[in-house]
Amino acid sequence: MKTWLSVPADSDFSIQNLPFGVFDAGNGQPRAGIAIGNHIVNLAAAAESGLFGKRRFFKKLFEQPVLNDFIALGKPVTNRVRRKVQEWLCLPQTPENAEAILVERGAVRMLLPVRIGDYTDFYSSIEHATNVGKMFRPDNPLLPNWRWLPVGYHGRSSSIVVDGTPIRRPHGQILPKGEEIPVFSSSRQVDFELEMAFVIGKENPLGQPVPVEKAEEYIFGLVLFNDWSARDIQRWEYVPLGPFLGKNFGSSMSPWIVPLEALKPFRVKGPKQNPAPMDYLRTTGARNCDIELEVAIQPENGSETVVCRSNTRYLYWSMAQQLAHHTVNGCNLRVGDLLASGTISGPTPDSFGSLLELSWGGQKPLTLRDGSIRTFLLDGDSVVIRGWANQDGLRVGFGAVRGKVEP
Amino acid sequence: MKTWLSVPADSDFSIQNLPFGVFDAGNGQPRAGIAIGNHIVNLAAAAESGLFGKRRFFKKLFEQPVLNDFIALGKPVTNRVRRKVQEWLCLPQTPENAEAILVERGAVRMLLPVRIGDYTDFYSSIEHATNVGKMFRPDNPLLPNWRWLPVGYHGRSSSIVVDGTPIRRPHGQILPKGEEIPVFSSSRQVDFELEMAFVIGKENPLGQPVPVEKAEEYIFGLVLFNDWSARDIQRWEYVPLGPFLGKNFGSSMSPWIVPLEALKPFRVKGPKQNPAPMDYLRTTGARNCDIELEVAIQPENGSETVVCRSNTRYLYWSMAQQLAHHTVNGCNLRVGDLLASGTISGPTPDSFGSLLELSWGGQKPLTLRDGSIRTFLLDGDSVVIRGWANQDGLRVGFGAVRGKVEP
Repeated sequence: MKTWLSVPADSDFSIQNLPFGVFDAGNGQPRAGIAIGNHIVNLAAAAESGLFGKRRFFKKLFEQPVLNDFIALGKPVTNRVRRKVQEWLCLPQTPENAEAILVERGAVRMLLPVRIGDYTDFYSSIEHATNVGKMFRPDNPLLPNWRWLPVGYHGRSSSIVVDGTPIRRPHGQILPKGEEIPVFSSSRQVDFELEMAFVIGKENPLGQPVPVEKAEEYIFGLVLFNDWSARDIQRWEYVPLGPFLGKNFGSSMSPWIVPLEALKPFRVKGPKQNPAPMDYLRTTGARNCDIELEVAIQPENGSETVVCRSNTRYLYWSMAQQLAHHTVNGCNLRVGDLLASGTISGPTPDSFGSLLELSWGGQKPLTLRDGSIRTFLLDGDSVVIRGWANQDGLRVGFGAVRGKVEP
Repeated sequence: MKTWLSVPADSDFSIQNLPFGVFDAGNGQPRAGIAIGNHIVNLAAAAESGLFGKRRFFKKLFEQPVLNDFIALGKPVTNRVRRKVQEWLCLPQTPENAEAILVERGAVRMLLPVRIGDYTDFYSSIEHATNVGKMFRPDNPLLPNWRWLPVGYHGRSSSIVVDGTPIRRPHGQILPKGEEIPVFSSSRQVDFELEMAFVIGKENPLGQPVPVEKAEEYIFGLVLFNDWSARDIQRWEYVPLGPFLGKNFGSSMSPWIVPLEALKPFRVKGPKQNPAPMDYLRTTGARNCDIELEVAIQPENGSETVVCRSNTRYLYWSMAQQLAHHTVNGCNLRVGDLLASGTISGPTPDSFGSLLELSWGGQKPLTLRDGSIRTFLLDGDSVVIRGWANQDGLRVGFGAVRGKVEP
């Protein structure tokens, strides 16, 4: 496929990618868009010029502040829109309406692309669960249910923000080491969690489970996700009902949703599962994705240090298994719901997806390129997560999700 | 206050109550309403007849399928609308527009009154937490954090349904007693949880906590709530991240939201808190509500047996404390969010708010009026929760929330 548009060879947003997002060109009017190289295809403008037929219908759709109604039309429609844009970008010569439809990516502000109804966070990396387990419960790291089901819990959707939104260091109750009486303080252990998340594209009615072999029909696309965590608040509050204020002060997602279809060339088998999953979780074929991930910390006025390199392929439980498990009791999913993977840690210490693991609970401080030391994040630190799939010169990337810790 | 309308003396929906809901009179057109005795004031019709001024604005508002936009206008507006309806109902004689505005309550279907963004469930009854703790963790019933903070977790908002919606018995993984390998089965331990919940009426921006003394400004009103639970699924899945599929197959709420203002005569002090709460949780005055609660089980084709009588006043942590705690880390609340109390158990065995406690984990079966026995719910069982405040002939009630367990 060849486009008349100049796309840098190393761009995350190749002609094979074409992810969806919502942008504001500075006039307070949100528009749906598709990223291509350093540009955005303004879908409302493309609709107006007749690219998808039904001009008025599609224009109105793409002027909404979120993609929910568009996604709810289903894959036949969303894939067709993506294909039409691809064809337009691959015309033999620059079309006349190019200037009316293209926007420079650097000139716009990206918005949260979906209205998220419910957000669920899984815990699907066996390396992460084992690492955290060793620290929180040394005698009992991987709990007995872990290999039988994709452990997950409900998170907070109101505080999910888009790339670039600052994160305020939270206050809360903390139990100082060795004490029995908690103190009220700002968190001293603000951490990131390297995750990916997928956006639901199809609903199941309450009471009707989604079979695992049909689960991917319900997945619209994927984003990068940072599940910011305050470890000291979390440690004191989390028994017996799970994480709450240690997590819900903010979570960040990348603005471009990469459709599942764009990841087809990068599907791989996941780790061998032992014991064999129960029937409702049993899948065949390549259910994981080979997506390279990295996390960098950038101190205020400093340069980035990459502190973690991981890969989505390490995940023990696949997206299809997460979705089938989530609905096996009849729980209903809605378009725009977000299901996150949990921290994606790999087998080696440089692939651990959180500072909790990288610094081993604060025992092994990290040294950044400027010589400064981290166990957890300092005020002014930005965390940048990047992700991309790459194979034989074909690149499908997610861009980045960045957030800065503020006092 | 005296109304020209005939209101039964024992009605939950007295002239002092006037709760808000959304109904469908059978034509698929949702309308906002206020309950009075056996009738509903159709707020869209009342707006049309000029009761609130700005006819078109209010009519459109009250024709929406949820109350969110109305509630978001704030207490000055919502209280004024309620007061205008009260004045109209207390005119010296039946007004001419009565027939156009009143609807018979028995003739309509009630809808879910709000679009719930996030749903949080607390765990604020010390009796319940102690009872459950004794069963799940005999050596460690009340965990060390419990008396310091209102423990809570995020629940699922998509599966919250209105009064009367059937609940399907969920399937899931269960670890049989004494076994090490789980089985896949329908739950054998479906339970109710007697709760109350409040609806958020005012938003706080992300990063800005709500002080405890201002918390009640953010509470629009209260409903009855049944947090259905599958104990066997919950027991196997809940470590370390909390309840998930054991809860999210369905939760039921009553359709009429009783405004906080209507409960003013029934405010009482809560239990003495020891240790003294931290500053951000410290309140004065009457922060609890004296609301009598009962739960009945009605077998298929049978009559009701009341199995529990409790009272909201038993709650150790007040709504204001729950809300202040929820936001102390900067977490943002949105209009329509639901914050539930957790099971409201009292001090005596007949006041326990779940079958788990009433049957003490299945060891003490209950006998219903028809002679049949329950440890947990059977298919065909309906659970009915009722709640009302009553004092010196003044009654402000919540009606009921009912749900039937289906196979």
